[in-house]
Amino acid sequence: MNIADLLNKKIIELKAPIVVGLDPTLPAIPDVYKSPYLQLDNPLEAVAKTILDFNKDIVDSVYEIVPAVKPQCAFYEKYGHWGFWAFEESIKYAKSKGMVVIADGKRNDIGSTATAYAEAFLGEVELLDGRKSSSIGADLLTVSPFLGRDGIAPFVETCEKQGKGIFVLVKTSNPSSSDIQNQVTVGRVAQPPAVEAVASHLTIENGRTIFEGLAAYVNEVGKNSIGDSGYSAIGAVVGATYPKEAEVLRQLMPKSIFLVPGYGAQGGGAKDVAPCFNKDKLGAIVNSSRGIMCAYKEKYKATECSKEQYKATVQEATLKMREDISSVL
Amino acid sequence: MNIADLLNKKIIELKAPIVVGLDPTLPAIPDVYKSPYLQLDNPLEAVAKTILDFNKDIVDSVYEIVPAVKPQCAFYEKYGHWGFWAFEESIKYAKSKGMVVIADGKRNDIGSTATAYAEAFLGEVELLDGRKSSSIGADLLTVSPFLGRDGIAPFVETCEKQGKGIFVLVKTSNPSSSDIQNQVTVGRVAQPPAVEAVASHLTIENGRTIFEGLAAYVNEVGKNSIGDSGYSAIGAVVGATYPKEAEVLRQLMPKSIFLVPGYGAQGGGAKDVAPCFNKDKLGAIVNSSRGIMCAYKEKYKATECSKEQYKATVQEATLKMREDISSVL
Repeated sequence: MNIADLLNKKIIELKAPIVVGLDPTLPAIPDVYKSPYLQLDNPLEAVAKTILDFNKDIVDSVYEIVPAVKPQCAFYEKYGHWGFWAFEESIKYAKSKGMVVIADGKRNDIGSTATAYAEAFLGEVELLDGRKSSSIGADLLTVSPFLGRDGIAPFVETCEKQGKGIFVLVKTSNPSSSDIQNQVTVGRVAQPPAVEAVASHLTIENGRTIFEGLAAYVNEVGKNSIGDSGYSAIGAVVGATYPKEAEVLRQLMPKSIFLVPGYGAQGGGAKDVAPCFNKDKLGAIVNSSRGIMCAYKEKYKATECSKEQYKATVQEATLKMREDISSVL
Repeated sequence: MNIADLLNKKIIELKAPIVVGLDPTLPAIPDVYKSPYLQLDNPLEAVAKTILDFNKDIVDSVYEIVPAVKPQCAFYEKYGHWGFWAFEESIKYAKSKGMVVIADGKRNDIGSTATAYAEAFLGEVELLDGRKSSSIGADLLTVSPFLGRDGIAPFVETCEKQGKGIFVLVKTSNPSSSDIQNQVTVGRVAQPPAVEAVASHLTIENGRTIFEGLAAYVNEVGKNSIGDSGYSAIGAVVGATYPKEAEVLRQLMPKSIFLVPGYGAQGGGAKDVAPCFNKDKLGAIVNSSRGIMCAYKEKYKATECSKEQYKATVQEATLKMREDISSVL
């Protein structure tokens, strides 16, 4: 059973193709999570411990309702090694509750550096005495494809070895995602012969957009990682804000799971995410971060919301989202 | 004085447009750095402390010869929060010796997430009590542009506020960098009217490549950050492996400093990096990682090399590189 199988199994069991974002910005966190740590000597440790408690309560509220969480690396790195500690501990906690963890790092590099990222997030790292140890321990990682095939292949290799997965950014949810992704191409300027001799390329057909070329590559490279559920561990990020493009991409990557940002706060509705799914009602997992994490703000002030009240609003918002998504499938 | 001014001042003083990569992979590190920590209970702490000692000796060997170091995030993240601790401490140490620090993270995201990365690496982060603190404390960060203008602008804003800088990936040194970067475009497929109304775009002229479009954008957006030395804090990554493209890019971004990977181990020679410079002999800083970090392997085995021997080979290789680069300027 590969990671796509596990994810699909949980999506079917829970009837919830949903991932809850763990994006713990301080303005989002009710005061009750902050007050125990205000007196700590190290202010970065204080933030990290606040974040971890906050995340644990979100996980406790949703692990019986949805299959996965998606911590966004930036909000942890922000607080240096203490923040990174909170990132790791949050992942451990979510895994202990049986959740699938998608690390949203949009990592990208080449060769041994890309392999280092892949091993860090998804695999095992080498220790001083030559033994290996797991490190961050996520199940899936988002990967940015600007460096071309060299920049994706090492992640795919690690996934194949470790039974883990990635989501390659193909069409992102933001307003200017079209700047590069929607460019129509008429051919690639070749590089010097010595380079072309050693390069392996992802091919973009003339007259197609960059995102279509990437989709064809994701589909191709994912063929070695298709599990029993018929889906590949090599998925794609496809924004809820572009339903027309999603329709095209669904055809180009029939076996890939789409990680779908942009629902809720960014403007995508349930109808907009519908084209991301296949007819089997699988093939996509829709993310909500702020919509769930900050739902409490409709009822309570951050200064007044108790932990029990907070958890109730998280659960309520998640159930509501599940109903909303179900209504269009 | 902005960060471009500081970097140029040091380049001129030391006659060395050179940055030394801090890419501490275990096979690169002589045993003498590992042995003190082999008995530690926590094997990730052991690696982190090894890495820090190793990096400190590299910094000690080069800080009087070259202006900057470039730690590559992947090799630290690999070891979780302990690795991140070694990353931060290495940066602190290099700064204490007066060096400019370029964090090579190729980070990319949008909106508040991009701002979180920028604040983490280059700015100040908010604490529980509302005060601010610096976090990672680098001077410059590499940024990947796949998400379009939304994905770069928040980094630029933080740079303007904090007097820091970025290098946007424009034409990378790897063999398949042409997959996306060298695509010739004939126009962008427009997005829905509601999105276009709020989107701001980087424009790529019809018939131009993606890398040329990016260069024009970097040049434009960098105009607000030009310092007394005539250079902008918004630079570009341009690989030493593509001298023809570098010539074109030098014209398109006359005010940007190029961070130039690909010299040495990746096949670029001094002649290949020459087109990255302007006539004033400024405008580029050439990176070497393995070529300097592993120079000792030509003389010593990893099991036998002492710290003094290691430092001598680092210094020797750096001086040799400085001479090599100087010969073509």
